[in-house]
Amino acid sequence: MNDRGYRAWLEAVRDGRASVDEALAALRRMDAEDLGFARIDHHRALRKGFPEVVYCEGKTDEQAAAILVRLCERGDGPVLGTRASAGVYERVRATVPDVEYHPLARVVRLMRGVDSPKGHVLVVCAGTSDLPVAEEAALTAEAMGARVERLVDVGVAGLHRLLSHLDRLYEARVLVVVAGMEGALVSVIAGLVDKPVIAVPTSVGYGTQFHGVTPLLSMLNACASGVGVVNIDNGFGAGYLAALINRLGD
Amino acid sequence: MNDRGYRAWLEAVRDGRASVDEALAALRRMDAEDLGFARIDHHRALRKGFPEVVYCEGKTDEQAAAILVRLCERGDGPVLGTRASAGVYERVRATVPDVEYHPLARVVRLMRGVDSPKGHVLVVCAGTSDLPVAEEAALTAEAMGARVERLVDVGVAGLHRLLSHLDRLYEARVLVVVAGMEGALVSVIAGLVDKPVIAVPTSVGYGTQFHGVTPLLSMLNACASGVGVVNIDNGFGAGYLAALINRLGD
Amino acid sequence: MNDRGYRAWLEAVRDGRASVDEALAALRRMDAEDLGFARIDHHRALRKGFPEVVYCEGKTDEQAAAILVRLCERGDGPVLGTRASAGVYERVRATVPDVEYHPLARVVRLMRGVDSPKGHVLVVCAGTSDLPVAEEAALTAEAMGARVERLVDVGVAGLHRLLSHLDRLYEARVLVVVAGMEGALVSVIAGLVDKPVIAVPTSVGYGTQFHGVTPLLSMLNACASGVGVVNIDNGFGAGYLAALINRLGD
Amino acid sequence: MNDRGYRAWLEAVRDGRASVDEALAALRRMDAEDLGFARIDHHRALRKGFPEVVYCEGKTDEQAAAILVRLCERGDGPVLGTRASAGVYERVRATVPDVEYHPLARVVRLMRGVDSPKGHVLVVCAGTSDLPVAEEAALTAEAMGARVERLVDVGVAGLHRLLSHLDRLYEARVLVVVAGMEGALVSVIAGLVDKPVIAVPTSVGYGTQFHGVTPLLSMLNACASGVGVVNIDNGFGAGYLAALINRLGD
Amino acid sequence: MNDRGYRAWLEAVRDGRASVDEALAALRRMDAEDLGFARIDHHRALRKGFPEVVYCEGKTDEQAAAILVRLCERGDGPVLGTRASAGVYERVRATVPDVEYHPLARVVRLMRGVDSPKGHVLVVCAGTSDLPVAEEAALTAEAMGARVERLVDVGVAGLHRLLSHLDRLYEARVLVVVAGMEGALVSVIAGLVDKPVIAVPTSVGYGTQFHGVTPLLSMLNACASGVGVVNIDNGFGAGYLAALINRLGD
Amino acid sequence: MNDRGYRAWLEAVRDGRASVDEALAALRRMDAEDLGFARIDHHRALRKGFPEVVYCEGKTDEQAAAILVRLCERGDGPVLGTRASAGVYERVRATVPDVEYHPLARVVRLMRGVDSPKGHVLVVCAGTSDLPVAEEAALTAEAMGARVERLVDVGVAGLHRLLSHLDRLYEARVLVVVAGMEGALVSVIAGLVDKPVIAVPTSVGYGTQFHGVTPLLSMLNACASGVGVVNIDNGFGAGYLAALINRLGD
Amino acid sequence: MNDRGYRAWLEAVRDGRASVDEALAALRRMDAEDLGFARIDHHRALRKGFPEVVYCEGKTDEQAAAILVRLCERGDGPVLGTRASAGVYERVRATVPDVEYHPLARVVRLMRGVDSPKGHVLVVCAGTSDLPVAEEAALTAEAMGARVERLVDVGVAGLHRLLSHLDRLYEARVLVVVAGMEGALVSVIAGLVDKPVIAVPTSVGYGTQFHGVTPLLSMLNACASGVGVVNIDNGFGAGYLAALINRLGD
Amino acid sequence: MNDRGYRAWLEAVRDGRASVDEALAALRRMDAEDLGFARIDHHRALRKGFPEVVYCEGKTDEQAAAILVRLCERGDGPVLGTRASAGVYERVRATVPDVEYHPLARVVRLMRGVDSPKGHVLVVCAGTSDLPVAEEAALTAEAMGARVERLVDVGVAGLHRLLSHLDRLYEARVLVVVAGMEGALVSVIAGLVDKPVIAVPTSVGYGTQFHGVTPLLSMLNACASGVGVVNIDNGFGAGYLAALINRLGD
Repeated sequence: MNDRGYRAWLEAVRDGRASVDEALAALRRMDAEDLGFARIDHHRALRKGFPEVVYCEGKTDEQAAAILVRLCERGDGPVLGTRASAGVYERVRATVPDVEYHPLARVVRLMRGVDSPKGHVLVVCAGTSDLPVAEEAALTAEAMGARVERLVDVGVAGLHRLLSHLDRLYEARVLVVVAGMEGALVSVIAGLVDKPVIAVPTSVGYGTQFHGVTPLLSMLNACASGVGVVNIDNGFGAGYLAALINRLGD
Repeated sequence: MNDRGYRAWLEAVRDGRASVDEALAALRRMDAEDLGFARIDHHRALRKGFPEVVYCEGKTDEQAAAILVRLCERGDGPVLGTRASAGVYERVRATVPDVEYHPLARVVRLMRGVDSPKGHVLVVCAGTSDLPVAEEAALTAEAMGARVERLVDVGVAGLHRLLSHLDRLYEARVLVVVAGMEGALVSVIAGLVDKPVIAVPTSVGYGTQFHGVTPLLSMLNACASGVGVVNIDNGFGAGYLAALINRLGD
Repeated sequence: MNDRGYRAWLEAVRDGRASVDEALAALRRMDAEDLGFARIDHHRALRKGFPEVVYCEGKTDEQAAAILVRLCERGDGPVLGTRASAGVYERVRATVPDVEYHPLARVVRLMRGVDSPKGHVLVVCAGTSDLPVAEEAALTAEAMGARVERLVDVGVAGLHRLLSHLDRLYEARVLVVVAGMEGALVSVIAGLVDKPVIAVPTSVGYGTQFHGVTPLLSMLNACASGVGVVNIDNGFGAGYLAALINRLGD
Repeated sequence: MNDRGYRAWLEAVRDGRASVDEALAALRRMDAEDLGFARIDHHRALRKGFPEVVYCEGKTDEQAAAILVRLCERGDGPVLGTRASAGVYERVRATVPDVEYHPLARVVRLMRGVDSPKGHVLVVCAGTSDLPVAEEAALTAEAMGARVERLVDVGVAGLHRLLSHLDRLYEARVLVVVAGMEGALVSVIAGLVDKPVIAVPTSVGYGTQFHGVTPLLSMLNACASGVGVVNIDNGFGAGYLAALINRLGD
Repeated sequence: MNDRGYRAWLEAVRDGRASVDEALAALRRMDAEDLGFARIDHHRALRKGFPEVVYCEGKTDEQAAAILVRLCERGDGPVLGTRASAGVYERVRATVPDVEYHPLARVVRLMRGVDSPKGHVLVVCAGTSDLPVAEEAALTAEAMGARVERLVDVGVAGLHRLLSHLDRLYEARVLVVVAGMEGALVSVIAGLVDKPVIAVPTSVGYGTQFHGVTPLLSMLNACASGVGVVNIDNGFGAGYLAALINRLGD
Repeated sequence: MNDRGYRAWLEAVRDGRASVDEALAALRRMDAEDLGFARIDHHRALRKGFPEVVYCEGKTDEQAAAILVRLCERGDGPVLGTRASAGVYERVRATVPDVEYHPLARVVRLMRGVDSPKGHVLVVCAGTSDLPVAEEAALTAEAMGARVERLVDVGVAGLHRLLSHLDRLYEARVLVVVAGMEGALVSVIAGLVDKPVIAVPTSVGYGTQFHGVTPLLSMLNACASGVGVVNIDNGFGAGYLAALINRLGD
Repeated sequence: MNDRGYRAWLEAVRDGRASVDEALAALRRMDAEDLGFARIDHHRALRKGFPEVVYCEGKTDEQAAAILVRLCERGDGPVLGTRASAGVYERVRATVPDVEYHPLARVVRLMRGVDSPKGHVLVVCAGTSDLPVAEEAALTAEAMGARVERLVDVGVAGLHRLLSHLDRLYEARVLVVVAGMEGALVSVIAGLVDKPVIAVPTSVGYGTQFHGVTPLLSMLNACASGVGVVNIDNGFGAGYLAALINRLGD
Repeated sequence: MNDRGYRAWLEAVRDGRASVDEALAALRRMDAEDLGFARIDHHRALRKGFPEVVYCEGKTDEQAAAILVRLCERGDGPVLGTRASAGVYERVRATVPDVEYHPLARVVRLMRGVDSPKGHVLVVCAGTSDLPVAEEAALTAEAMGARVERLVDVGVAGLHRLLSHLDRLYEARVLVVVAGMEGALVSVIAGLVDKPVIAVPTSVGYGTQFHGVTPLLSMLNACASGVGVVNIDNGFGAGYLAALINRLGD
């Protein structure tokens, strides 16, 4: 609904400057033009702290950088570029000096309009090869205002490493568990905690790991409850969902 | 948009019975209630001759029949029940005497509000085992006002049977080609005609036919152009799409 | 850790009844016996309001009922039996009169030790055929203390039905979206709300729906963010996860 | 059948210049040579406005260009080269100066013998990454004489963008909907319009998007009716089919 | 081409009873009616000893029997019904007393117009569970005039059993090898002989045998040369192909 | 090699009853007849304690029982019937009174010629639904002379249950780990012990468990070393392999 | 069997230089040493005209060339190198001047010990992109002594092209049909001829062609009989099998 | 358990420097910190002769080398780097002069703390292309103290080559069988021996070999018993498991 337009016509009718039929036709036209989405848009405008995100893969460095720069210039919230090369970063930095680059996660990030971190998202990852995906999740959740901790290299093959961090598992409000190979870490952790677990399968492995299909299936069938799964290597999606959940506890 | 409501508030403003702010609040509330879809609905109300359809599989005979009876009693257009048992038909007929049953296609149908058939949809099928799906397509297209012809048992293994019907292929406005096994019939026919071909893979076959996956893939990769594919055994969807296309020629 | 045993040996050392070496050996033995899990168990004992759950499929009615009765008699929290036949229910009710049965969801449930419902979980489902899975999710979340609302039959094919319920979507703390066919409902809803969405693919469909694989893949690749996916037809898992998330907002 | 040959022999028999047996042998030989296909060929010769098409992938630039030049020199209708590099274009232009190149769609095109555009094909695409496929569809349909409009970047994640273009959706005679990720756009659009929808899944995505398999399955199982699906990334096939359908309305 | 019709018109022209134009029109009509396939048909009519085959699965006993009886009454060559129940046989025998039934292979067969068996087809099978498929192959090849020998239960797990029959392997003109489980028998045999091997995967096995997919893949990748593969459980197809090959040696 | 035949001819040569050439021809013929396998057979005859096994699925009770009775009567070692119904057992017991039946594992077993159990095979299983497969493994290993222990219901979801049995895991010579769902138990156990682990995926689960494919893939990609995997639900194969390994330690 | 060894011991026994027991032990030892394979080898030695084949993919040019040279120098029959680069050829030619290279098929070939071509193998291929595989088949069959004809670019999309070559199809003794895309050509041809058809799926296509899986499945399910299928892109295997079959007709 | 910490508090209690309650609280805190894993760790510390392993794929040469050097410097047992380039080796050798490099298997190895080889592991491989995987298995088993023999190029296509090595097969304590293509070698060997067989599918092949899936499935369904399967191309895993088994026989 377009408040100003509506008010103008109502006032015109009130003041006798327009007939009821004229006003009716005008209102009808307005509805036809922005049907439904004004309200939706309004709603979205309220979502402060939600990053504007650009998926850079499949774009040239120039294209990705141009879009990111425009987003940085236009709004006043955080901006995120995922799967971004250093070249994208260099180009954005030329215009937006305070933009960050995280080479491991291949993330370009502008932290702006983000309050001091709140809550507690714990990003756990099984092996060092899973770090890029885990870091993408962590950086995303931070951009949405979450306080994020990392717990790395606690794979199931060395269970004692994981068990020695039980306290950290228990303290989190929501956990993101990133694992390749067979993804068994998700089942083990979800069996230990009573908080939501966001599971991220990675493509780390070979042969029948099938580029992440094996841990994906494993996580979907986890014998422990409380697990929601995202796409393979989708650190961004996991961090985003974790941050949404984390906000509920604020 | 709700015309009567709008007019009432506009008149109240004009007559001084309501303030601009009161009217604005009221209009806002109305928009919230039926946002956008009034117009969509209006559009759908215009689609005379579109069947109301019930997919009966997975419902008890009682449930399916009850829904079908309600649809028959409520509207004045055609009604279709697909994958319906004879039991469903018996129950519907008790209330709606002029309903038809087509046991091969397992279709319950009420032809009502359908003009005399127009255009020319040709439903071709490879083998007798594909007949139920082909017939579902034909019955659906008829319910939407199309004139439908059938051409059966013209599989690729006996090419001369197909070639002896070239004229019938050429005369159709749109063709529905139904085939199981490897689905090669689609490629052959689409190579012969210059009209749209709707391809329906069926689950007829065994072993690596994989319940219809093989002809589906075959049809998606047909070396001839002009082919659109629907889901396995989806005679209804093919007939519906063919009838939509057929109307364009009226 | 075994407090009483530790204290006994510490007191013996303090009182000179045992040497340090004797006590050390004893403590070491104790650790070997109940390594680690005392504390884990303690933790789990604290999880009041978590249902004890029995997956009844693949068990005889007698077996399932026997396990459920034992759980009902042993604890003081809620008990849930999923995929349970009416026969299971009859057998449980003979011993536990206040047990409920929900035939659509095939759930046997004992609501006990559950506080008055809190928060707001919205369970949305695309078609009536998805209702059993949706209801399993709703009943599970309720058993964990969540206030649950249902919104049914708002499939994407009739978008206006969904859009007319925007307010209900916006009000929920967490949403469970249940959909078969192609599962597009998840993308649409996740694009409208800024709350966590738990997506449940169902096996409703035929042919290339592949018993739920299609909506599963669709949901994992949803173009909207904030979605976590569970196994096909896993209403229980979705309800459990939604309730965990819902608690964070209390 | 070869009319001139037949007539010559019939006249020779009439005039006594050949015996019946001689003529019979001659006719038999002719039939052996061009059995059946004379008539088919005749039919194809009538299909003015159908492009001659070369799929350039897997050919060297030299090979592709040579074939395209030959087609341009031989006939008098449109010529299309799909998946063509700029190198192919340069080579063709050397001989055929009025050939066009569309780098985004990687299409080489010679618009010749094409009447002024007719009808109304609307090519809709979900994201900017889907543009190359969408453009291939549009260029193909144009080459076949269709008037084509484009509507880009109206993905389901921002539903309001799509809903603000309802009129354009309603006005089209046939729609080509191009979408990667989960392909939900097809279901939403097909639920809004009552015209044929040609669905094109693209390989845009990662992980379980499986190079386009996910939107393909999603489109085959669309809960809305009136959808025909083509192969992954097959913009050409969709444009071709859409143009065939579009002609029916002329 | 239709010789008699052509000759009649040529004679009429010669004799002045018809004009060239009249004859030309008549010839054109004839071509239109039986375009191309007269010759094809003639060709097929020559294929004495090729069975008429009915695939009985998915047909009622009555339907299958009716078709078989019609084939028996119409022609004078062999007739085969595959996947036929005893009920089909009983019904056929009532009209065609000399029809045979082979319950293991579920084959109904009428040996008629088949010369004394020639050549040498060896049907080998790995385990007793593969016998029905092997027997279907053998019965089919016999119906096409081949002399067939069987060699059963010579699976790879007991290699000595196979090696003790080397002579029989060497003597065959063409071999049909039927195997379930992993289908390794094909590789072993094709490595021993220098004759064509027709490989038939069967659905015998469980778990990752995937209803015959495993031996199918195994046979397609056999490290030994000279192997052609047919569909899973397709004994008929293997016997048919083997008999075609066997004839070449006559 | 055929000793008696060889000796007879050697004696004939020695005694002058046969020439060297005559004997040579005879020996050559014998070799042709039983090429190679005498020695293999001899070898197999030495494998005391290896069960004769019948896979009863897909056989009638009568057939399975007949084969089992024959094996019981013929040899003097253990006999095993897997996937056997009670009906098979009843029929065998009529002739072989000391045969056992294990209904959970559906195993018919005759323990005969089996020494007192040796070594230590530990069969671990995740859930009660996996028990039939676990028991099949245990019964098989016992039939081959292994001392077998069982450890049940120690799934990963309740890690403390497993950890409380560390000693039992450490003491085994070889472990068979049986798990459905996602099969994570294998990774956890293989990370704890330094003995061979035989992993058996089961079909226990639903949806994307894909009848055991998920734990199979999970086990093949276990992040811990020392794991060998067998077919889905193949308790027999795991027990057999475990017993072979167990013997090495005797 | 080792003739010389046997004779020596038989003569020793005849002459009293050895006892029967001594000879028996010696013979037993000999059998153990070269069990069975002497005879097999002898058999293989007889297979004149069978090419020695090297699959060059995955080998360095140097390695592949070295093996090919060795084969050329050692024997006196044909030698074939498949998937060989020009670099392999250059290296072989340095030593073996009369070796040929076929760049399209990537085959290095030495025609030696091959009689004048016999019989009639027809290699048909659907599109020009399938030529490399078709040519590999043709070159292989020629190396095994077959007379080979080629028939190219007769895809199903232009059926008249194929039908105009019916005579050539009818004249062949065995046909190799090579097709990518959906592979429908196999069904059409097998429906026209009564000779064995060897079907070769190729990886030509994109999207759901799945690198050749689609035509493979299509060919395995061909509705026409008489088809044996080989692995994707396996021109060598098809040519080899066709030549084996072709020999039977000599 | 933390011995030193425990002892300190026990002595403090004994000496009256701390109360029982103070000590109890301290002990409880310690358990929380290193719960459970002390004992596990102790156990692992005992596993002398187990290699520390680095999977180098996906790491830069620098990273892989750095980790390997650290492992070499830290411990006193063997160190293994798999899938390592020559560059990794060069970098490690600069610091650790006695490190080996095996280019075929791409293994960097430091043999240290390994006793003289014991037992008998036989690594068999089908073709020369499978050698890298086979060699990885052999090198791994050696690093764990096993005496390893190799038997190469004994594929099923030339069965006599394998049969001529029966003695070597019989003598092994455990066999690792490495095979690509269809993997039939595993079935043949497992049918000949009565020792554990570790099966390793390789990705050697093309088309439907599906990068190793075909031999994997084949091995899981081997008709012979006593087979455990590892992941595709997982030579390391097979060698590790074989060495574990081999130790049992010491």
